[in-house]
Amino acid sequence: MVELKPNFKLLFESKNWITLKNTLVGYDTQQIAQFMEEISESEEIVLFRLLNRNQAKEVFQLLTYEKQEQIIEGLANSSIELSNLLNDIEPDDRTALFEELPGQVTQRLIQYLSPKERTIATKLLGYPENSIGRLMTPEYVALKPHYTIAQSFDHIRKFGVDSETLNVVYIVDKDWKLVDDIRIKEVILATPEQLVSDLMDNRFVALNVLDDQEGAIKTFQDYDRVALPVVDDEGVLLGIVTIDDIMDVAEEESTEDFHKFGSIQSAIANPLKERIFDLYKNRIVWLMVLVFMNVFSGAALSHFEDVIQTVVSLVFFLPLLIDSGGNAGSQSATLMIRSMTIGDVKLNDWYNLIGKEVLVSFLLGVTMAVGVSIVAAVRSPEIIMVVSLSMLLTVMVGSLIGLLLPFIFTKLKLDPATASAPLITSIADICGVLIYFSMASWYFNF
Amino acid sequence: MVELKPNFKLLFESKNWITLKNTLVGYDTQQIAQFMEEISESEEIVLFRLLNRNQAKEVFQLLTYEKQEQIIEGLANSSIELSNLLNDIEPDDRTALFEELPGQVTQRLIQYLSPKERTIATKLLGYPENSIGRLMTPEYVALKPHYTIAQSFDHIRKFGVDSETLNVVYIVDKDWKLVDDIRIKEVILATPEQLVSDLMDNRFVALNVLDDQEGAIKTFQDYDRVALPVVDDEGVLLGIVTIDDIMDVAEEESTEDFHKFGSIQSAIANPLKERIFDLYKNRIVWLMVLVFMNVFSGAALSHFEDVIQTVVSLVFFLPLLIDSGGNAGSQSATLMIRSMTIGDVKLNDWYNLIGKEVLVSFLLGVTMAVGVSIVAAVRSPEIIMVVSLSMLLTVMVGSLIGLLLPFIFTKLKLDPATASAPLITSIADICGVLIYFSMASWYFNF
Repeated sequence: MVELKPNFKLLFESKNWITLKNTLVGYDTQQIAQFMEEISESEEIVLFRLLNRNQAKEVFQLLTYEKQEQIIEGLANSSIELSNLLNDIEPDDRTALFEELPGQVTQRLIQYLSPKERTIATKLLGYPENSIGRLMTPEYVALKPHYTIAQSFDHIRKFGVDSETLNVVYIVDKDWKLVDDIRIKEVILATPEQLVSDLMDNRFVALNVLDDQEGAIKTFQDYDRVALPVVDDEGVLLGIVTIDDIMDVAEEESTEDFHKFGSIQSAIANPLKERIFDLYKNRIVWLMVLVFMNVFSGAALSHFEDVIQTVVSLVFFLPLLIDSGGNAGSQSATLMIRSMTIGDVKLNDWYNLIGKEVLVSFLLGVTMAVGVSIVAAVRSPEIIMVVSLSMLLTVMVGSLIGLLLPFIFTKLKLDPATASAPLITSIADICGVLIYFSMASWYFNF
Repeated sequence: MVELKPNFKLLFESKNWITLKNTLVGYDTQQIAQFMEEISESEEIVLFRLLNRNQAKEVFQLLTYEKQEQIIEGLANSSIELSNLLNDIEPDDRTALFEELPGQVTQRLIQYLSPKERTIATKLLGYPENSIGRLMTPEYVALKPHYTIAQSFDHIRKFGVDSETLNVVYIVDKDWKLVDDIRIKEVILATPEQLVSDLMDNRFVALNVLDDQEGAIKTFQDYDRVALPVVDDEGVLLGIVTIDDIMDVAEEESTEDFHKFGSIQSAIANPLKERIFDLYKNRIVWLMVLVFMNVFSGAALSHFEDVIQTVVSLVFFLPLLIDSGGNAGSQSATLMIRSMTIGDVKLNDWYNLIGKEVLVSFLLGVTMAVGVSIVAAVRSPEIIMVVSLSMLLTVMVGSLIGLLLPFIFTKLKLDPATASAPLITSIADICGVLIYFSMASWYFNF
């Protein structure tokens, strides 16, 4: 297949719209979507309007929110196209887009929906942000236990066209309460005269519509499912959530944790596209907090003015010592944050981990103290004792801070990743300064 | 349903095996697997042997590698049970387990497999580590284009029992070359007399058997698939990879990146269970590397002995200044590493990002310089110029190091996450020391 790009440029410049429209039919929606991310806003609207209705829907769903917004704006003067598009896309993708748009735009767009789609959209938007309700689609296939397999296939053929997936079908009772989920594999492998109830084991996993989206990641992993049913408190089936949406949530969560751990206030989408002021805003808050925390290191240092002035070689080892404590602390925090995120370590495990960390950090500290005393032996043998003992203590204290802070943040109902590497480093630095110069003052009798 | 735990304890202690066996049938395999992670090794073997064959297979696949190894050891004196288990579990899960075991154990276990399963196992183990070949299962359903839908269903019923998933079926030509993939939804919704070729669009996405596993994560996300076919260089269909295995790879990759960014040498599974020496080993290497890097800060400092001794208040601002550079650098590195991992930023984007980073870090530096000059004004007004100008420069230099290092590591074919927060901090510290005291020496005419 020819590359879309050079071909498109040529046809676009010659304004040969009909040939371009016919050419586009030959491309995969994924290729078109990827290409749309690369071209200018005016080109992308032209291209989008040349797609047929089904392509338009599929391409739209593959675009980033940013591009989706541009398309919506670009179609503003063509209410039929806009209405078709908004009615065609999957309810869950539509809710996700509406969440990204300002409230009044969403309200205006909802007017373009058919009465049926409007009911669905307003309902999904009624669930709290980051709840499963916002991720679900009401388009699934439900069977009754008394259907035969033959009847079930008829039912699926009749009602399955709109279903987001047919990989799993759901069994409901007369009150539409969920009683089971069955993989399509089992339905296909059954004989036509068997009953749905013959395939049922009455065991199923369901998400509550108000559950947190992040919690669902673990459920999907633990149960190896590609779709999960969503029920209300009474157990009534409301919709389904598919794994592609959960993978997006998982990726967002990882990004958020990673960014938090690097002391970035809220997750930044793509630094290439982000505005300079937004980048600034997301970084400055933590940096300033850390500046004012570090003022304490300075304040602590000024108490030791005499010993610093007398034994000036102490200063040479200052960056080394305080960094080492911070580095060991970052390591501990890294381990704890990730373990807590994936659920290996729980809040009340802190007690079990402390003993282990004391031992590990002792070993680390001793090794590093030996390392640093070799350096000190060459350059300033008079402070070898002070430097190596301080190293041991600083590494141990830093490690324990790194271990405990993620637990403390979790206890305070904050994300453990708030215990970022820079925060740990700064706290460990203050401790390092105090340990090092207290020890020096004592050793040199100040 | 009653809780498994108290029930189990009671029956176990009374050695009431038959009741226990019957009770276990009533539990979900997921519940049993979770419970097995909590009990002792001897209890878990007893419990495992009480499961029926199908339960045993499913529970086994849900266990951690650690538990799986224990079970294998526990069954060593019962070759029938061991043989049943090893033959029953899915080929991809088996390969994953074999990868974790020492070579000679794997070789011994392969002898327990039936000739057919042995061929599959040795073949899968023949693919390179971390390649798609190691993740795939040869159990899928393939159709031919000339089949009718009715014939296809017969074929699926006949050969689909062992298939890991029937969510997607694959179309191959006479040489078993992949020509299309079709979602089961479309097969079900078609009429019995339609041909498979009527449903085909000859567009499909396939993974190469030698592709890297991590790269497949993006393919799954971009194309919203629950399973992808795996082909060799000639396009012959070899197997399929399902999304549950890819989600595990994605989680491992996130953990690895997170751990690397915290300067931990290789990903640590669960700090609660890890041995103390392994924890030590995975942390000490980077810590020692950083110690010796920091010796440079010390060496740099000793050149400025005179100015330090004369203007001792300079030392009070040292931790603050060097930390700020490191913190700003950590932020930039965080953004770059994550963007490179998820594919938003590519190697040759570094050039586009530098201009932006200069501006952002200038804004950050100015804000922080204002902040620090307020502190300096109160405490040591004589160095206010030196401190605030150094802050601006240190933040800018730190940010640019944080931005560029992940690109440099990628260029050197290393994971960008090797540019860990502690590494950036240490490099930024050396630069900070040089900037600060050079400026001070110049300002005070030393």
